[in-house]
Amino acid sequence: MSNERLTQQMAFLLEADKLKTILRRTPLTDNSRQENSAEHSWHLALAALTLSEYAPPGLNLARVLELVVVHDLVEIDAGDTFAYDLKGHEDKALREQAAADRLFSLLPHDQAVQLRERWDEFEAHTTIEAKFANALDRLQALLQNLGAGGGSWSAHGVTRAQVLRRMGPVEDALPEVWPFVIGIIDRYCAIGAIAES
Amino acid sequence: MSNERLTQQMAFLLEADKLKTILRRTPLTDNSRQENSAEHSWHLALAALTLSEYAPPGLNLARVLELVVVHDLVEIDAGDTFAYDLKGHEDKALREQAAADRLFSLLPHDQAVQLRERWDEFEAHTTIEAKFANALDRLQALLQNLGAGGGSWSAHGVTRAQVLRRMGPVEDALPEVWPFVIGIIDRYCAIGAIAES
Repeated sequence: MSNERLTQQMAFLLEADKLKTILRRTPLTDNSRQENSAEHSWHLALAALTLSEYAPPGLNLARVLELVVVHDLVEIDAGDTFAYDLKGHEDKALREQAAADRLFSLLPHDQAVQLRERWDEFEAHTTIEAKFANALDRLQALLQNLGAGGGSWSAHGVTRAQVLRRMGPVEDALPEVWPFVIGIIDRYCAIGAIAES
Repeated sequence: MSNERLTQQMAFLLEADKLKTILRRTPLTDNSRQENSAEHSWHLALAALTLSEYAPPGLNLARVLELVVVHDLVEIDAGDTFAYDLKGHEDKALREQAAADRLFSLLPHDQAVQLRERWDEFEAHTTIEAKFANALDRLQALLQNLGAGGGSWSAHGVTRAQVLRRMGPVEDALPEVWPFVIGIIDRYCAIGAIAES
């Protein structure tokens, strides 16, 4: 082990601390404040442990955990782009690629390549692990809004069609969970927390 | 799949959201606020991915990730016990056992047993995965205090002997990282952020 290698690893871990200051639009379920992207990432990991039985056979759960742990790191530079912000999504990919270039390169080269591959895999939505991780990412936001009584849906006038589109990866990757999602959308439309149109 | 099973799993994930409100004594590295136990757990998972090469051969990294994801859940009921709070540690085990009984039993029985086993394993410090996870838990607090320029050490008048004892699991599980730890302790003693005695 060279000191240089460990020094780079520690610098990366110190830089990663900034993810705790990146705020999402979703609130905590007690509505006390907005959720941050670090605690959100932990919640996805717990959701992966809890809901893996709904994924297709052969899921590599360890890989899913690796994907969710790194999936939002780029927000340290690129910020969180609100799910329903069309303008923000125009340059989201470019901003996040630049962030990934900088952040992962803090690590020793072999690890930079390895963790960057995990992030690329999450973004590509092609492997069953990435599909499952992305579905959890959508589902967890729904749970936060459910717990908070409307959350970012009611705060931003989001419509049923927008939520249905956003939750699409859950229908694809976790079909058994989909009726639960539809049930919540129906309920939150009925109370006006999600706009019908 | 029964609806009852999914309902229990979702109730557990909603309850777990409360871990984001449990504050530790360690600050964020920008000193803007105290760290919470959910984002801390995420940081441990990232540290596991980054530092696994220093663990003994044969480490099951997936298992480590599972341990760190659940290791602090009991704090939802039991609160965070400050590392250097001797009085708080007298009944810590009892408070946390009761919390584990309640929280994991929100899950379907088979999963309650499985995740409780992970928590018990972390607490027992016997497997190489638990030793590695516990060492990361100590090391991450050191990194937070390092980044924050003293953090909970200077705020609470912690001594060199206390920090050395607290960091013991790092010396045992990550001997190659130990000189880095000693270097930081020396440096923070020199500037008075850790008391010599």
